[in-house]
Amino acid sequence: MSHPYSPSDLILPDFTPNLRSTSEVHAWNGIASFLVMFIIWRISGRSPRKLSKTDRWLMIWWAVSGLIHIIHEGYWFFSPEFYKDKSGNYFAEVWKEYSKGDSRYASRHVAVLAIEGIAVIFVGPASLLAMYAIAKGKSYSYILQFALSLVQFYGSSLYFITAFLEGNKFACTRYFYYSYFIAQGGTWLLFPALIMIRCWKRICAACLLLDHKTKVY
Amino acid sequence: MSHPYSPSDLILPDFTPNLRSTSEVHAWNGIASFLVMFIIWRISGRSPRKLSKTDRWLMIWWAVSGLIHIIHEGYWFFSPEFYKDKSGNYFAEVWKEYSKGDSRYASRHVAVLAIEGIAVIFVGPASLLAMYAIAKGKSYSYILQFALSLVQFYGSSLYFITAFLEGNKFACTRYFYYSYFIAQGGTWLLFPALIMIRCWKRICAACLLLDHKTKVY
Repeated sequence: MSHPYSPSDLILPDFTPNLRSTSEVHAWNGIASFLVMFIIWRISGRSPRKLSKTDRWLMIWWAVSGLIHIIHEGYWFFSPEFYKDKSGNYFAEVWKEYSKGDSRYASRHVAVLAIEGIAVIFVGPASLLAMYAIAKGKSYSYILQFALSLVQFYGSSLYFITAFLEGNKFACTRYFYYSYFIAQGGTWLLFPALIMIRCWKRICAACLLLDHKTKVY
Repeated sequence: MSHPYSPSDLILPDFTPNLRSTSEVHAWNGIASFLVMFIIWRISGRSPRKLSKTDRWLMIWWAVSGLIHIIHEGYWFFSPEFYKDKSGNYFAEVWKEYSKGDSRYASRHVAVLAIEGIAVIFVGPASLLAMYAIAKGKSYSYILQFALSLVQFYGSSLYFITAFLEGNKFACTRYFYYSYFIAQGGTWLLFPALIMIRCWKRICAACLLLDHKTKVY
């Protein structure tokens, strides 16, 4: 069975095409994300600590991105033969679909595998911890969010740079290149960058205060 | 001309063996590092801000590691054919030597190239900024040191993980595997980890103080 991915000389024995439609795969992703957003928004609204809207949106971001790291990327990380799946497994369908934008997920490119391994094992669980830290107003909340955002930003940069260095030949059409590869990768650059700027400012203000106090007393 | 690197089927046209002895290459590295350490130690000792010994050693670390990123790794990044060098260029000799521990520097492995590109262009100059920030007691000193250490730590982790995933076949002997690949890579894990722990504690203390002040006033 030939596959739709680029480059066409990529060898994927026993490849099985998508068994669910593109819209079905996107619909389940959308419904699941919306459900998580709704639950976190409701729960965070009842917090006795009176969380700001920004903090509540950040809790949603860390919940959604943490669950994607753990569940979606975790499935991929531990399923090297997902492209052979004949059972219609939802996650296999997701990665068969996404590989149209970046076939390195089907071919298990070593750089993608290393970046995803760290995302699944460390960044995912720590993202849920960041959500908890915001809810409870922990003192490590800002530095943890900064650290996770930097790992996401740097990981995504390497993700793009390695693709560019190898000739940017992993998307099957321009449509999938922009809608999957660029848009998905760009999300993990944009939001982490915004969060890093916010945390950087807060941490600098806090360090200035601590320096000042150390000098005064 | 056949090369000494592993794997032996690696093709390096016009390879020229080391023209300087191993001890000469190591000696120049040692002398240069010692000179930078000596200069930074003396200058930082005269600072009117009365820097602690820890801060002075951190300035040395950021100076040495920043200069290695910019000069040594910068040479490698912009010299794809260093292994052909017949002029005895010192930096070409350094990388011909180090490639015995990791031939991916000779073959320009895509993951190493991406990690080094970021190190040369961003981490190197920002390391010198970190040295300046410590000297001047800037409020961004801790978060900048944390960010750079995290990038070094994560980059080195990916450096090791990608080698392991591809079968750890890039060192020509066990001696070079441990003395170059493990020892050198390990340095960029150990010191960044220690610096991250120190910055994390300081930033948490500062954020706790800022939270407290925000509540009181």
